[in-house]
Amino acid sequence: MKEFDVIRELLAPLSKQAGAEGLRDDVSLLPSRTDARIITTDTLVEGVHFFASDPLDTVAKKLVRVNVSDCLAKGAKPKDALLNLTWPKKRSDDDLRLFVSGLAEDFAQFEIDLIGGDTTSTNGQMVLSLTLIGACVGLGPTRRRGARENDDIWVSGTIGDARLGLECIIQSLADQPDLVARYRVPDVPIPDIADCIARYATASIDVSDGLVADLRHLAEAANLKAEILADHVPLSDETRKITDADLSNLTFSDLVTGGDDYQALFTASPNARDALEAWSRKSGQRLSRIGRFVKGEGVDVLNANGDPLKILTPGWQHGSDF
Amino acid sequence: MKEFDVIRELLAPLSKQAGAEGLRDDVSLLPSRTDARIITTDTLVEGVHFFASDPLDTVAKKLVRVNVSDCLAKGAKPKDALLNLTWPKKRSDDDLRLFVSGLAEDFAQFEIDLIGGDTTSTNGQMVLSLTLIGACVGLGPTRRRGARENDDIWVSGTIGDARLGLECIIQSLADQPDLVARYRVPDVPIPDIADCIARYATASIDVSDGLVADLRHLAEAANLKAEILADHVPLSDETRKITDADLSNLTFSDLVTGGDDYQALFTASPNARDALEAWSRKSGQRLSRIGRFVKGEGVDVLNANGDPLKILTPGWQHGSDF
Repeated sequence: MKEFDVIRELLAPLSKQAGAEGLRDDVSLLPSRTDARIITTDTLVEGVHFFASDPLDTVAKKLVRVNVSDCLAKGAKPKDALLNLTWPKKRSDDDLRLFVSGLAEDFAQFEIDLIGGDTTSTNGQMVLSLTLIGACVGLGPTRRRGARENDDIWVSGTIGDARLGLECIIQSLADQPDLVARYRVPDVPIPDIADCIARYATASIDVSDGLVADLRHLAEAANLKAEILADHVPLSDETRKITDADLSNLTFSDLVTGGDDYQALFTASPNARDALEAWSRKSGQRLSRIGRFVKGEGVDVLNANGDPLKILTPGWQHGSDF
Repeated sequence: MKEFDVIRELLAPLSKQAGAEGLRDDVSLLPSRTDARIITTDTLVEGVHFFASDPLDTVAKKLVRVNVSDCLAKGAKPKDALLNLTWPKKRSDDDLRLFVSGLAEDFAQFEIDLIGGDTTSTNGQMVLSLTLIGACVGLGPTRRRGARENDDIWVSGTIGDARLGLECIIQSLADQPDLVARYRVPDVPIPDIADCIARYATASIDVSDGLVADLRHLAEAANLKAEILADHVPLSDETRKITDADLSNLTFSDLVTGGDDYQALFTASPNARDALEAWSRKSGQRLSRIGRFVKGEGVDVLNANGDPLKILTPGWQHGSDF
């Protein structure tokens, strides 16, 4: 397809508001607003953040969700997006349509409007960037800094499924479509978690680099130590089954450092426990209280006896050589 | 360098405002504002939009300027930027420092503040995206649509230098550092042109695909025909010298369709002529009145006798296969 046709036929239908001019102009008017807005952007590179063989609708959803995850974890609802698409010339028009169909589904689900972007082609690998503007529920985003001594540590959903799903692909383990799906399409928390975080969280982050690595970011920003209980880290039934039966070569340590969970990790006063548990019951969104902040530095993962586990890999992605 | 170090040492110094948290958080607060804001984004791909051998400070400046050009042409001043950097692993730290030095110089020149981004690495080619937020001088951006019959057509600066500079690199023509520099680092109009466009322009676009192709966008949006006079298209002395002496295989047609000029192209009422000429004299920014809009469709480039020239290549970039 020609670039003009890609924009007109495939992408313009994702753009609703007048200020974006149907993606037919060079700039988009940012929607006028009275609430505080945040902006975030993430890039996915073929062969680095997804496999060339991954279905392209799932790649599109991953691109949307890694950004949605940032928004929600900071107490903001997704609103407007810009897409930078660097598309390999060897890919077919059907590939492109599949990619856009995934984008359209997630834009509908998360109520995101496309307001701009750029499309380029390449003889190299696919590179995708999405920039997402979100509307803060509160007066501003919840920050990484802000946790206080004795604050509880909470995490949404379950941890480690994506890492195990990745291992299922790499090792061609016995059929585990649910876990592979979790790796390909992150299971982000429900949008209303933004309200919950805006109201109760003292600090927050999304779990992209791994539970331990992202918790370390909160600990460093607060000059405190995070202590979490291994038993309290929420694992899905599928993941528990596989790790208990030792069906992969992954340890608990791998699951809490593996990354790609895209759950919300936040701190809150112990006074907020009842309210958070009530919200979780009412909304159906799983929330787990996994530990607390104490004096000190770093992250301790404690076993049932209260002894620190040795966690081998402190998050891999951003600490690696650039 | 490790990603954390790249952000802390190289990129954070480009980030000034509190809401960006020194690039140490997951999202940035969009600056509060009372004026209308626009957003635009452009991607540059190694081997497509620049040569792998181009000095990386010039690549950084091209990345900034292709976006600045969009802002200025729409009557807005550049303000805040997000950078998506997909960096080849084989490039050295010195390459990265050179890239960031170019970025820093242009951010200083255009008063742009870095508020966010994402850094990823790749075994493939370099891919760079910049997203730029601009503050409208008027109540909103000047649009592609809006030209009226009999409106004059104006263009800033000179046309064709970048295309000729590209040819100098491809053909290894006799030393033409000024033209090569124009290809590598676009010579965008002065920032105050945003005020001028906001005040007088009825429609506008920046010249990225080529003068004729971009003028066609304005003509289509207005349902009118653009007539320009070949003699009035502003050429630099260097370009005129080379084309007059037939030192390259480029024709006038190539110059007005070549693209990468990044000048502002706009329409205005004939009543605004005196004001625009006075502004040009006072500011030192070259402006040329090259034609007008009439009934009809398409773009005619007329010779001194008033006959249409045959323009062979109607802009290459976006009409090409995706």
